Amino acid sequence: MKADLDRLMVDRGLDAFVVLGGAEGNHVLKYMTNGASVTHTKVLKQRGENPVLICEPMEREEAAKSGLPTLTTTEFDYPALIRAAGSDFEAELRLLAAIFERYSVRGTVCFYGMEDPGKAFMLLSRLGEAIPDIRVTGETETTIFDEAYATKSEQEMAFIKDVAERTNRAFSDVIEFIKQHRVLDGRLVQDEGAPLTVGRVKSFLRGRLMEFGLVDDGETIFAVGRDAGVPHSRGEDDDVLEIGKSIIFDLFPRSLKHGYYHDMTRTFCLGYAPPEVQRAYDQTLQAFNAVMDALQVGERASLYQDIVCDVYEEHGHTTPRSHPGTVEGYVHSVGHGLGLQIHSRPRFRTNSDDLIAAGQVFTVEPGLYYPSRGYGIRVEDTIYVDAEGQIHSLTTFPKDLVLPIG
Amino acid sequence: MKADLDRLMVDRGLDAFVVLGGAEGNHVLKYMTNGASVTHTKVLKQRGENPVLICEPMEREEAAKSGLPTLTTTEFDYPALIRAAGSDFEAELRLLAAIFERYSVRGTVCFYGMEDPGKAFMLLSRLGEAIPDIRVTGETETTIFDEAYATKSEQEMAFIKDVAERTNRAFSDVIEFIKQHRVLDGRLVQDEGAPLTVGRVKSFLRGRLMEFGLVDDGETIFAVGRDAGVPHSRGEDDDVLEIGKSIIFDLFPRSLKHGYYHDMTRTFCLGYAPPEVQRAYDQTLQAFNAVMDALQVGERASLYQDIVCDVYEEHGHTTPRSHPGTVEGYVHSVGHGLGLQIHSRPRFRTNSDDLIAAGQVFTVEPGLYYPSRGYGIRVEDTIYVDAEGQIHSLTTFPKDLVLPIG
Repeated sequence: MKADLDRLMVDRGLDAFVVLGGAEGNHVLKYMTNGASVTHTKVLKQRGENPVLICEPMEREEAAKSGLPTLTTTEFDYPALIRAAGSDFEAELRLLAAIFERYSVRGTVCFYGMEDPGKAFMLLSRLGEAIPDIRVTGETETTIFDEAYATKSEQEMAFIKDVAERTNRAFSDVIEFIKQHRVLDGRLVQDEGAPLTVGRVKSFLRGRLMEFGLVDDGETIFAVGRDAGVPHSRGEDDDVLEIGKSIIFDLFPRSLKHGYYHDMTRTFCLGYAPPEVQRAYDQTLQAFNAVMDALQVGERASLYQDIVCDVYEEHGHTTPRSHPGTVEGYVHSVGHGLGLQIHSRPRFRTNSDDLIAAGQVFTVEPGLYYPSRGYGIRVEDTIYVDAEGQIHSLTTFPKDLVLPIG
Repeated sequence: MKADLDRLMVDRGLDAFVVLGGAEGNHVLKYMTNGASVTHTKVLKQRGENPVLICEPMEREEAAKSGLPTLTTTEFDYPALIRAAGSDFEAELRLLAAIFERYSVRGTVCFYGMEDPGKAFMLLSRLGEAIPDIRVTGETETTIFDEAYATKSEQEMAFIKDVAERTNRAFSDVIEFIKQHRVLDGRLVQDEGAPLTVGRVKSFLRGRLMEFGLVDDGETIFAVGRDAGVPHSRGEDDDVLEIGKSIIFDLFPRSLKHGYYHDMTRTFCLGYAPPEVQRAYDQTLQAFNAVMDALQVGERASLYQDIVCDVYEEHGHTTPRSHPGTVEGYVHSVGHGLGLQIHSRPRFRTNSDDLIAAGQVFTVEPGLYYPSRGYGIRVEDTIYVDAEGQIHSLTTFPKDLVLPIG
């Protein structure tokens, strides 16, 4: 959690770090500014000191909501810097140099945030040359934020439970909406007899997400039949909901207010399940339960990937362990941490060194994919490990394969 | 437009470019993949050749929607690379090297996209050392995409007109919603007598955005009174709508489907306008119309910033020209290009070299800000310059200051 940042900086020999870039996708900026809606902001943190925020004058009031000491670029004479520098790039270099001088930044300075990679390469190369007192660096593997994010503070857990509760309600509302339809010629139809399409379900979902203050950026997966067999296919708007076909519904919205994610998946068959799909589903639940039974603080996360591979291989499926790169059978890893990012630590793949620890939030999501046979299966809960090491699922929606219709 | 990329690469001496990073905020990835919903994808373009897309196997079907030739990382033996490399960072280096070898990439290679800046610095530094045949670079000022984005293709114009029409309808619906309320003790109240709040207006707006397939990520500005005087303050949910106070309503959503933005602002006074606010509004319309009358292909964009400063200074207001860094009076520049980014070329500030050209889409948005006097004013249309150089506003909503109530 955030209180660990100073210790993590010591571990890596960092004297200071700077957060760069705009707001979009910039989880480090969101984390460091405590969720303030700022778009052009730099955050400087020196080891052992509180972070400071430098923003454009127009954003000063939103920036103040971060609770951090806030300076505007005007205090660094930025308008004059831009005129003198002759380019935005040179002005940004000079602004960074002015900030470093004001706060007496020296030593190893690491950069985080979200930027055009080519521009970042040029900026940080030049900065290192221009200021002899600092050594510019970046983190390439497990960053201090990867580690800090992996365990949640009480405040973060309140946000995560809040988004979990709202996501489960939105999910449940969509299922109730689907169940209100009737069957005609093997398809779900609306009152006027038109088939219920994936597009109509997603449109209803968008309304519920709006009501609950959630955003999915159109990324929700509601994929029918063959499409469900390709893990990241999002479903086609024109597809109709047919009896007996598997549907993967993977909902992973974030809260508009605080930015934290929930991630949950259920697989349904409308009316009845074909025997092969039921079998694959039962095997998936077996894998899910095997993981849940074995989850334990201090254990390697990769153990749970092995447990899922054990279950699936025993039933004759290919896995990433038996067939690296396979696109049929079990094709991904069993879970991922989440928070302000949809994918963060711990990682569960075979070569991960991450350990299960108190304060973590992660998904458990085994699945089987057979696009050539017209189906896919995935079951996913978001899991929380409390301070005592107890394992809790934050995904309360039931896990029944068959959705009775009519 | 995209057809210009080869010429722009020649101008800058680029032999190839690579797009890196995830989907969030990654407008270059969206542009190059023609809007496909991909999250882990690299795009390689060599000068004079069609771009190719390299994705993870799970995303192969969404990736194919880009219309680009698509390879999965499996074809570069990525699972084996990860095992051999010992880290994600090393594996990514080796994957890039393998891609360069397969496509015989040599010479100057530029990088774009969206990445952690520190990681990008380390990755591109190492890549340049590891592959002697390439020179790694980035663009620090006007990139090939800044230039390509600045003029729109017919396909893009269809998207831009579509998002304009839907945004104007959503805007209009919100105004009609507000007008349905009645006045009690100088405030707008709902049927049951509770005051109409900014939070309630924004909740109604979210519903309309959803209906029209638009997303605003909660960034819409609906700011009352003093808050309207701080350009980027988004408005407080608990603020009530009072008679006679200025409201700035700045709506700039993007289309969920194709990702293009519209940007429009109106300022309202409910019931009546205080004389000072009316005067500032009239001066702002005067500035707006002066710009519209003078807009012409081939002219420097910065001329229009001067025109606005002329009008405002003549009326005794401070401007960024008369008082750099001012936070009262006129405090920003008169407009910005937009498209897949909310801010792109042309730029209108004083030191901009950009010229007005056919095919451009940009905002015109003069404004006056007096938080200490409890008001702010801004009027903003999105403008399109057609192939013949004719100027069209895509923002059709009327520009009346006073919103009659009751």
